[in-house]
This record gives sequence, structure tokens and C-alpha cells, in this order.
Amino acid sequence: MSMPNAFVPGSVALSAQDEALVARRARVLGPAYRLMYEEPLHFVRGEGVWLYDTEGRAFLDAYNNVASVGHCHPHVVEAIRRQVGTLATNTRYLHGLILDYAEKLLATLPAALGHVMFACTGSEANDLATRIARAYTGGTGIIITDFAYHGLTLAVSEYSPTLGNAVHLGSHVRRVTAPAAYRTEGDVAAAFEAGVRAAIADLHRHGIKPAMLIVDSLFTSDGILTEPTAFLKGAVDAIHEAGGLFVADEVQPGFGRTGDTMWGFQRHGVVPDMVTLGKPMGNGQPISGVVIRPEVVDSFGRNARYFNTFAGNAVSCAAALAVLEVIEREGLMANARDVGAYLLDGLKGVAARHEAVGDVRGAGLFAAVEIVADRASRAPDRELTSRVVNRMRQDGVLISVCGPGYNILKIRPPLVFTRENADTFVDVLDRALAAR
Amino acid sequence: MSMPNAFVPGSVALSAQDEALVARRARVLGPAYRLMYEEPLHFVRGEGVWLYDTEGRAFLDAYNNVASVGHCHPHVVEAIRRQVGTLATNTRYLHGLILDYAEKLLATLPAALGHVMFACTGSEANDLATRIARAYTGGTGIIITDFAYHGLTLAVSEYSPTLGNAVHLGSHVRRVTAPAAYRTEGDVAAAFEAGVRAAIADLHRHGIKPAMLIVDSLFTSDGILTEPTAFLKGAVDAIHEAGGLFVADEVQPGFGRTGDTMWGFQRHGVVPDMVTLGKPMGNGQPISGVVIRPEVVDSFGRNARYFNTFAGNAVSCAAALAVLEVIEREGLMANARDVGAYLLDGLKGVAARHEAVGDVRGAGLFAAVEIVADRASRAPDRELTSRVVNRMRQDGVLISVCGPGYNILKIRPPLVFTRENADTFVDVLDRALAAR
Repeated sequence: MSMPNAFVPGSVALSAQDEALVARRARVLGPAYRLMYEEPLHFVRGEGVWLYDTEGRAFLDAYNNVASVGHCHPHVVEAIRRQVGTLATNTRYLHGLILDYAEKLLATLPAALGHVMFACTGSEANDLATRIARAYTGGTGIIITDFAYHGLTLAVSEYSPTLGNAVHLGSHVRRVTAPAAYRTEGDVAAAFEAGVRAAIADLHRHGIKPAMLIVDSLFTSDGILTEPTAFLKGAVDAIHEAGGLFVADEVQPGFGRTGDTMWGFQRHGVVPDMVTLGKPMGNGQPISGVVIRPEVVDSFGRNARYFNTFAGNAVSCAAALAVLEVIEREGLMANARDVGAYLLDGLKGVAARHEAVGDVRGAGLFAAVEIVADRASRAPDRELTSRVVNRMRQDGVLISVCGPGYNILKIRPPLVFTRENADTFVDVLDRALAAR
Repeated sequence: MSMPNAFVPGSVALSAQDEALVARRARVLGPAYRLMYEEPLHFVRGEGVWLYDTEGRAFLDAYNNVASVGHCHPHVVEAIRRQVGTLATNTRYLHGLILDYAEKLLATLPAALGHVMFACTGSEANDLATRIARAYTGGTGIIITDFAYHGLTLAVSEYSPTLGNAVHLGSHVRRVTAPAAYRTEGDVAAAFEAGVRAAIADLHRHGIKPAMLIVDSLFTSDGILTEPTAFLKGAVDAIHEAGGLFVADEVQPGFGRTGDTMWGFQRHGVVPDMVTLGKPMGNGQPISGVVIRPEVVDSFGRNARYFNTFAGNAVSCAAALAVLEVIEREGLMANARDVGAYLLDGLKGVAARHEAVGDVRGAGLFAAVEIVADRASRAPDRELTSRVVNRMRQDGVLISVCGPGYNILKIRPPLVFTRENADTFVDVLDRALAAR
């Protein structure tokens, strides 16, 4: 399975400088690295929603939940600059910053989620959640959605089907079709719950005790399934009845992106046993975490201990604390809600003008535009989707693709996106579709 | 198995401020975190080899290979400050810094190791090496030393016995006694090779195909086994004959620490199939890597691809590049060799004065002092070792403990350690032993 929207070396003419960089990448980084877009990009500076290439051309970044409060946000930059010159040590010494951050973070979550443990990447967070779930439940079975992505450690790659057929799923992993309202007849909540119950039964039939159901509550790689909300309860009840845990992977929806709530799972009215955090947490500084019901980690914590050298270091905590402060001070959740709704209106206008748009949906500043061969069959048009993404890139707007049919525009701008940025976005998307 | 040198809450009186921090840690971080020393430390500033607590008291840090070129080294701090305000984006866009760093790093390694892939932690690096070894060999069997530590992902914790009995080893993992000259009769090279061959045979007997032999070439957690050198070849030949790979975990010995060579494996005259890098790489910035023979990663890279969001970002690469520049400009390998030899002489003087010292050994700025109940039996004295470490901490010098008997002083100062620092160290150690 090839990666969608990847640069194919040799397929287009690049500047001499970029050609040299591509050759150096192949030589020193080897064959595992991919660049995005038919014509790759070479950025040298970022600010807010803008990335600047070597020629000084500005690109509107509508595909970044790492620089979630904007590229090089001055408050985050200042926090890192101050702390990196003061102290950058680990969790085996006392340090106030990790606690200031942990308390501020936990205050944004349901009270039942009382502990947070830090790691450096979303993959490490999910890997740690897996270890904790196995220790707590005594089981190993993992239930995911069909086209989930949760990370790249050996254990997590075994339940990340989007990595492609060369990365085998574990024999203890079961997939359930994600609740895509656009492609489902009938009640998606009932269908999803039935799928989870069938997966549990199949695990049992193979002698495997379930450890956890883990989902991205926006089902990002399954196609950004923002609606309906409040349908996860039946599936969560099912995994609990089977003695397993429910884990919400908030690497994509978390930190205010969905506008109405700080966390994606809150849109579903459920409280997970664990919540995993990643990309937007430090606005680029490598920090991630697992938030946990205390009883779930009690035995693991006492017996197995946990020390991740770089995790929770003072610099990463300073960055993460600054991110929460910016989200508060600048009202970025409200901005995500308001600009997100405005953008969604704009996208609905695009849908009205272009037959190729089968569906648009969104929650805050996370939106999906589904490109289809025709509206009746809803057949994915992967090829047109790729052309749209690359035309938009040529016109200076960055997005990418997701979904099992690679036909869904993945629109995920920094939370400081403005209505003016949304107007630009809609305009460029309109032109990319008109040029079909 | 409890962690050596860990603070036991309630065991000593702390300042009101620190008592409050300890309580907050338990409340928000939960039971998995540990503090070091009977009386934990609370630092607020670091500079060079010094850490400063809340009272302004300076502690000589002789236990830090993260801040390997010194706490808050100005050149590294400046590199981070500059880049974090400019751009901090990922490897799916072209960026020169990652290539400048990769080329400079590869130039320090044997030419056969042609590719480098980046991750964020040593655990992730070893986890990736495991995935690559499995893909390349088609096997899963892993051979380690008795008391190895390689990291904390689910897959890597299964071959990290120092995590304790609550963290189970994988059924595909075999242990070989580490080559401790102080505790071995006869030829350690032959004994180690025989152990590896027996482990391979046992894997085969269980129907498990070997994937890799992985060792820290200084055998740090097995007790810092610096001598003899040049004994790994037989073991490496054995794993190659069995179709497996040899992986050198350089998280501890790497980046010039051993003084004579940039990398620990070079002391053994072997070229690994993969080399994993971690802690000292970014002087605290979370960056790690796997250096690989190109043929080993060819199929994995083409089929499985690899994208670690934070890994190889421009800020981490800027930090890591600055670290290599500092090692070069300040001659830190030569300093590690010279000051390391001077320190080792001092430690030999300590051994001459104290019956409790069974052995001292070292390579560059990595030294071990083995504390025994008596020299004839060589029985580990865990209790005295702990007292020595904690007396030294009270006297303002930081080290810790390693080895299966928890009786080995682990001495691992930043590479900018001076002869004057070594004098202080020896003096404080002398007094800690005299007070027994």
C-alpha cells in the first residue's frame, strides 16, 4: 500500500538546490522517508498559519496540528528560550514545572482521570497505554477501527493498519468498521457497538482476553467522522463488560481543536479509562502523555515503575504549559468553534458548486471534504482528490488526504486560523475543483 | 525488584516546599515515578558540570550523559533558541539541517553504516532497530546480557531485565552473562561467545529464528565492564552465522565518552549492523537515532516507510548539530580520555586506601567502583554502596548505582569534567568511604 500524496522521486523537475537535497536524503536517510506532494516543499521559516519557502513565498498551512497554536508562537518560543538556558533535567529530581503543567492539564479533563504520565511522542504514549492496559486487565486483545493509525513502535504498529500491508497486524488485534454516517445505512451507534461486541466474541473464540478498545474519537485516519456525536457509549460499555479498558487517542482531536470541547471524547459523553496525548501538546517540542484513572495504573506503577529520560523534562513542560496558556488567553477553543463553523459553511458552498464533492463535515478546525466519482454511488475518486491537493499546494495552500479510499481532504489548520484564512482556503479549493 | 537509590516517601524529613512537591507528584503523576537519593534533590539551574538547588547550593554532577557537553551549554542553547523562533517542522518537507546533521554524524561512524533514521528517545531507537531486524531476518529471537537495559516500549521492555521481575521478558528473549572480568575465571571473550552460541541453540530448539544480538558495548547496567576490549568478535560472528544482526546500543558509551573512540563498539574492533543512539545526542533535546547498513533497511524502508512526527525536526537537529560541533571544537573526546585517565588514577588511590573497594575500572569519563563485603569473596555490599552514594550526595557530588548486585558506583560526568572536578570527586568519595 503506497502512501497517499507522496512525492515520487524523478517524477517532476525540481530546482537544482532541491534536487540536491532529495539526493542527499536518499543517500543518508535511506528508503524509509517520504516527502509530501507531487512537488515537495522546502520551508525555511514559519509564523502563525504561514510557512515560507526558500524563495520567500508564503503558504497557508491548513494541515498542522503540531504547530497547533501557530508556527513559532512567541509565548511558546519565549518559554523554551528561557528554560533551555536555565535547566533541562529529568523527573528523578524535584521540579515545579512538571507539576504546574500536570495540574493545569488535568484541570481540563474529567476528575476521574487523576494521573498523568509523560512520554515524548504519541507513539510512546499509546505504547505505554498498551502496557498499562495489559498489566491491569491481564489481557492482550486490542480492538481498533478498520483504518486506524495509533503509532509506530513495534507494539503500536501492530494495531495501526494505515501503515500498510507490509506492517502486519498482531494476531491479538481485531478491527471494527468505523462509524461513517455518509457510508452507513441505519444507526451508526448500533452498528459500531455490534462491531465491537463481535470483535470481543472473536477474541474470546481465539482464547484471547480483551485488554482495550482504542479509538481516535474523531476517527481521523478513517476519514474524519465528526458526526454524529454521543454514539460511543454502547461500545464503551461492551469493552467494560468484557473486562477491557476504553482508551481515547486524543493526538488528533485534543487540545481544543473541535471547538466545543477541549477533548474529542467529550463530544461523545463518555469518560475513558485512559487518554493519550501527542502532537499539539508542546507546539512542536517532543512531549506526549497518558492521562489515567488512578486505579488503572496503581499496580503497574508500583511494580513496574516508569522512567523516560527526556519525558517531562523542564523545557518540554515549559513549552506545554505555554501552549495551554495560549489556548486560554487567546480563546483558541472559541476561535476553533467560530472559524471552524465559518469554514464549514464555506465548504458547504463549495459542495453546492461542485458535483465531485460528496460530503463535507467538520468539528471546529478539523474538516473533511469527500471527493467522489458520482454522488449516487459515492465511489471514492482518489485520483481527483490527489489532483485537488496538489493544485491547492501549487496555489499556496497546504492540506492532505485521508480515509480508506484516499479520497477525503484532510483539513486541520493551526487553531489561530482566521475567517480571512478560511476565505482564502475556500477560494483556492473552489479553483482546484473547477480546474478538474 | 526495587529500584536502587530511590527515595522512599516518608523516610526522611524534607523542607516544607519539597514535602509539598512530593505530595503533588504522588497526587498527579501517580505511583510509577521515582526520585533519586534518600533525600531527593530539587534543582532550579544548571551550568556546565554544576546543578544548583533552591538554596543556591552547587552540586557536582558526575551522573549525567544527557547534558553530555555540560548543562545549558551556550552553543547548544543558542542553536535551539535560534531555530525554535525560525521553524520547527518535520521530515515530510525538505530541510537542510537534518541533512547537515546526518552527514556530520555519519562521518564519525564506519563507512559501512550509510543510513541514519531519527526517533525521539533511546527506547524508540531500539524499538525501531527491533522492527528492522525482524523485517530483515524474518526472525524474532533476541539475545541480550543478563542485566541489560535497552528501553521502555512494550517490545523493548521485554528485553530489559533491569526493569524488574514485574516486567516480563519475552518468550523470544535469551540472556547471556555479561563479560565481567572481575568476576570471571578464564577468557571472557570465549565465555561470552559460548554464551551467545548457547542462546542461539536454545532459540533454535524452541523453533525461534534469531533476529539480533544487542549489547551496550560498555555493558553499563551489567556493571560498566570496560575491560578487556576487542572481545566481541566471536559473539558477532556467531549471531551472523545464525542469520541474525548485531546491534550496538550506544546510548551510554557513545558520543566520545570513552575517550579513545567516538563509539563504544569501536573499542571492540567490530562494525555493527545497526547502532542505536540516544541520551547525549541533543544535550537534553529529545532526539535519538538508528544508524544502519543500507542493505539491512532496504526492504523495510521501501515497504513499511517511517514517519515519526517530532523526530528529525529542525530544532532537534540544530541542537544535535551543535553538540557535535562542541565535541569537536572543545576537544571533548581528548578531555574524556585525559581527565578520565586522571580520575581513574585517583580512584585507584581510593581503592588502595579502602578495603571495601574490590575493583575500579573505567574508559574515558565512564568509571565504576565496585564495593564488596570483602575482597576475597568479592561479595557485593549493596548496603554500603547505597550509603556511599547518599553521603556523596550530602557532600554535594552526584552519582548512582548499577550492576546486578547494586554494588557498583556508576560515575558518568558530563564530558567537560576537569581535573579539578576529578580531585573534588576523589576527595568526596574518600570521605564517604572513610565514614563507613
